[in-house]
Amino acid sequence: MPATKDWQALGAEKRAANLHKIPTPWRLPESITKAIDQSSTISVLDVPKSCGLLSQDELDITEKYDATGLLEQLTSGRLQSQDVTRAFCKRAAIAHQVTNCLTEIFFDHAMQRAKVLDDYFAREKKPMGPLHGLPISLKESYNVKGIPNTTGYISFLDKPPAANNGAIIEVLLSLGAVLYVKTNVPQTFMTGDSENNVFGRTLNPHRLCVTAGGSTGGEGALIALRGSILGVGTDSAGSIRIPSLCNGLSGFKPTANRIPFGGNTAPGRLGSPSPIFPVTGPLGTSIRDLELFMKVVIDSDPWVFDEAVIAVPWRSVPRPPPTTRLRIGLITEDPSLPLHPPTLRALRTAVQKLENNGHTIIPLDGAIPSLWSSAVLAWRFFLLDPSKAVLRNIQAGNEPVIKSVQLTRFPENEGWEPTMDNLFDLMVQRRSIMRTYHDLLIQNRLDAVLMPPNQCPAPPHDTYGVTPYTVLANFLDWPAAVVPFGKADKEKDALFLRKEIKYVPDYNADLAEGLPCSLQLMGRPMKDEELVRHLEIVAKVLDED
Amino acid sequence: MPATKDWQALGAEKRAANLHKIPTPWRLPESITKAIDQSSTISVLDVPKSCGLLSQDELDITEKYDATGLLEQLTSGRLQSQDVTRAFCKRAAIAHQVTNCLTEIFFDHAMQRAKVLDDYFAREKKPMGPLHGLPISLKESYNVKGIPNTTGYISFLDKPPAANNGAIIEVLLSLGAVLYVKTNVPQTFMTGDSENNVFGRTLNPHRLCVTAGGSTGGEGALIALRGSILGVGTDSAGSIRIPSLCNGLSGFKPTANRIPFGGNTAPGRLGSPSPIFPVTGPLGTSIRDLELFMKVVIDSDPWVFDEAVIAVPWRSVPRPPPTTRLRIGLITEDPSLPLHPPTLRALRTAVQKLENNGHTIIPLDGAIPSLWSSAVLAWRFFLLDPSKAVLRNIQAGNEPVIKSVQLTRFPENEGWEPTMDNLFDLMVQRRSIMRTYHDLLIQNRLDAVLMPPNQCPAPPHDTYGVTPYTVLANFLDWPAAVVPFGKADKEKDALFLRKEIKYVPDYNADLAEGLPCSLQLMGRPMKDEELVRHLEIVAKVLDED
Repeated sequence: MPATKDWQALGAEKRAANLHKIPTPWRLPESITKAIDQSSTISVLDVPKSCGLLSQDELDITEKYDATGLLEQLTSGRLQSQDVTRAFCKRAAIAHQVTNCLTEIFFDHAMQRAKVLDDYFAREKKPMGPLHGLPISLKESYNVKGIPNTTGYISFLDKPPAANNGAIIEVLLSLGAVLYVKTNVPQTFMTGDSENNVFGRTLNPHRLCVTAGGSTGGEGALIALRGSILGVGTDSAGSIRIPSLCNGLSGFKPTANRIPFGGNTAPGRLGSPSPIFPVTGPLGTSIRDLELFMKVVIDSDPWVFDEAVIAVPWRSVPRPPPTTRLRIGLITEDPSLPLHPPTLRALRTAVQKLENNGHTIIPLDGAIPSLWSSAVLAWRFFLLDPSKAVLRNIQAGNEPVIKSVQLTRFPENEGWEPTMDNLFDLMVQRRSIMRTYHDLLIQNRLDAVLMPPNQCPAPPHDTYGVTPYTVLANFLDWPAAVVPFGKADKEKDALFLRKEIKYVPDYNADLAEGLPCSLQLMGRPMKDEELVRHLEIVAKVLDED
Repeated sequence: MPATKDWQALGAEKRAANLHKIPTPWRLPESITKAIDQSSTISVLDVPKSCGLLSQDELDITEKYDATGLLEQLTSGRLQSQDVTRAFCKRAAIAHQVTNCLTEIFFDHAMQRAKVLDDYFAREKKPMGPLHGLPISLKESYNVKGIPNTTGYISFLDKPPAANNGAIIEVLLSLGAVLYVKTNVPQTFMTGDSENNVFGRTLNPHRLCVTAGGSTGGEGALIALRGSILGVGTDSAGSIRIPSLCNGLSGFKPTANRIPFGGNTAPGRLGSPSPIFPVTGPLGTSIRDLELFMKVVIDSDPWVFDEAVIAVPWRSVPRPPPTTRLRIGLITEDPSLPLHPPTLRALRTAVQKLENNGHTIIPLDGAIPSLWSSAVLAWRFFLLDPSKAVLRNIQAGNEPVIKSVQLTRFPENEGWEPTMDNLFDLMVQRRSIMRTYHDLLIQNRLDAVLMPPNQCPAPPHDTYGVTPYTVLANFLDWPAAVVPFGKADKEKDALFLRKEIKYVPDYNADLAEGLPCSLQLMGRPMKDEELVRHLEIVAKVLDED
């Protein structure tokens, strides 16, 4: 790193270079951009439509379909990849200007690739693969050959661009996808706020002053604005599911190593012996798109690109008959992080609807260790590196630690030392909790476990804090998905306000108003296929009036 | 432990109690037993037949079938489980008297269980499960409810009997199996010699003065004498494959966590963060029996009994057409452990036969790190426990460390400390070697890798030493199988003697004469199903003249 520049200058330079990659005709007028501020309470969800930069065709392409629907158009030749790619590039550029969601912009590469795909289709009269021509957005950490990868560290700014594609990139390209942007993350990847000193902070398009989530927060904002309809993220403690819940998306954290993770630039040290593996998974706008991603990636035999993948096929699980009734375990709340009224209402409403439809709900709260205590143990696995490479990466750039990193800590872990003895004990403690959940599932013949993905909808910046509601699925290595369900509504939510309770963070009904609410469903490990089916059943019930 | 008795007395007492469980009519005459000595060069393979204790029916039951064949008799009602069980109990008793292969004897339980199965069959006109009525033998470490589990430690002698069945035991019982004996292991489980101070040493029935292998050595001797035709063992560094090669059996080390391991009494500390997982797998007399075991266990959904199992089905892989030609990688030798003449001849002969049959052999020796260096790294994962629980378990019994433990060490690991920093580095080194093998397999489109399972056939007691030829598959987590191929023959082997070479252990043509030779085949991780098919193809070629 040039010693003559400070981190502010280096970050500003990178951000300016990024903006420069957006063609002038795609720039928003100052009348819109001057209102963009991280303390503003406005929504920018209507900007792509109202700004006038997108043609009706481009609005149709980016709004009328989910990925599965758009692929039907692309693989049948009714739409060309170049038109689709241009529309999403343009819309992503708009999304970036209102939420600061992008880290790397490579529209030129994308358009060249789209042309190759269109030419292939014209010549061969068939698609190149099941993702033919579809633009897919990527979390910053994925290595794309020729594209920089700073993972948000100032000290990584002078690294050369990635020399090779990560495993999932090779897979997506082999399936016919088009790659066009990478998206923002938090410094360290370990917070619910996608802010770092290279790219700044990503804002939530639903309300600029609340978090877009993390660590895959750039994807969250981008997909909420439909600058992408299918994004790829990583999840070690909730990093796919948190942006999903903050932005009203569907997100899927698979069982570890079903989808390749290799070829990420890690924010920390390689070689962790932690049994909590970071996983790759999709964020999107429909459950069937989550399945599409899982199925086509797994069916491509991704072990070929990543030796850590568990090489097993995606099983074809038929949709059960409509008369199927599920047995669903229910985790309601950790008392130390009580559910805010909108989240409690969403969960109670869902339970009521499911029971009304004949599904059986089995409460688990009394039978499990507290979510908080499991999260404390999970976090120890993230603290194993005695050399503290994450801190060294920050210090090497002479940049400050961002605020949310300092808030994402468990007091119980102050003083806990990553010794080998402690790691042995931690492994035994984890196994014991895994067995508790396993036995509950078996004894109660559970199909899935329903729980909130967080205590509240997207909270104000730098208040997300620790993530016991999501890290549980990582700790157990159970697949888990987040799906949207309703919106905060202060009138209806008022009935669920518990006056005696201290909400963390503070509950502000006006700030929450209209923000998406979500539910989380966990399934059996390696039964990601069944989890998708159970998600569909639950979503169908929730959709009914 | 009563402080008034020394370890010799405690071991002698346990062994006497064991012998007492063999009914008097099943005891061998002194004319036979007096010749049993660990320094004797005799074979005892013919004792079960020649001793006169087994009726013709009992000889037929124990000799005419593999497990698959015997199950055809049992599940069709042509044989009753009580007759089969009695025959194997009797033959196991004989095997024990000549090789000291058993640790726990529970013939009464077995006969009661067989009666339950026969009654079930008579009543329901169908078998209880796919293993209906089949006696299956178990390595000492598996917990069987009500049966002691010392794992060969003096200090474990006063532990109460197992309170619960291990996961694989629950599975086998649910499938209709009959359990009747547990079998001998080395102190610490980490040597190729099944000797401990509780049960003594297991001898090799092919030649009493050579090792029966370890750590599943009791199974090796028992199955060689057909006191069992299907045994269950564990393998962290070769412990299924070593007894298989020492006794001319077929043994299968699956990909980790495909078969449940939970509910073993561990010889060391629980909670190791090592990524080399000990695995459960079968030892038997035919390749189809290895598949039978894998298939029926996995199809039973063993995750229900063990939360660590990777819950994926056994895939039905059709037998490829006879015209199929394989691409087989070949690892010949680590120069630090040069192949003895019989082993080199077996490997060279196999390669010749495979090439003559149109299969392609791709030499890998120059492209891989030395087997020795990979084994050094693998062993570090076995040394992670700073509290040295294994040593404490030995010391708690005031018993000496057996000789072979002291020989199973890598000088490179003296002074290596199990610190967290070292573990991170070790994980990175392992991943790099995994990638090397992965890339070789992909680039060369390999179906499997052929290699010797050891540098020699069963060597004299306490000379087996370290196990680079088997631990590789554990280190990589690739499935691997050992199958017998020919026998040492000093005349033919003489052509493969390299005079300039120092063999470790010493090569003694007379002592090796007639001992079984074996080959090892490794497959792709999670492709255990394909490995079985490739084993069949290779075995068919080897069987031809």
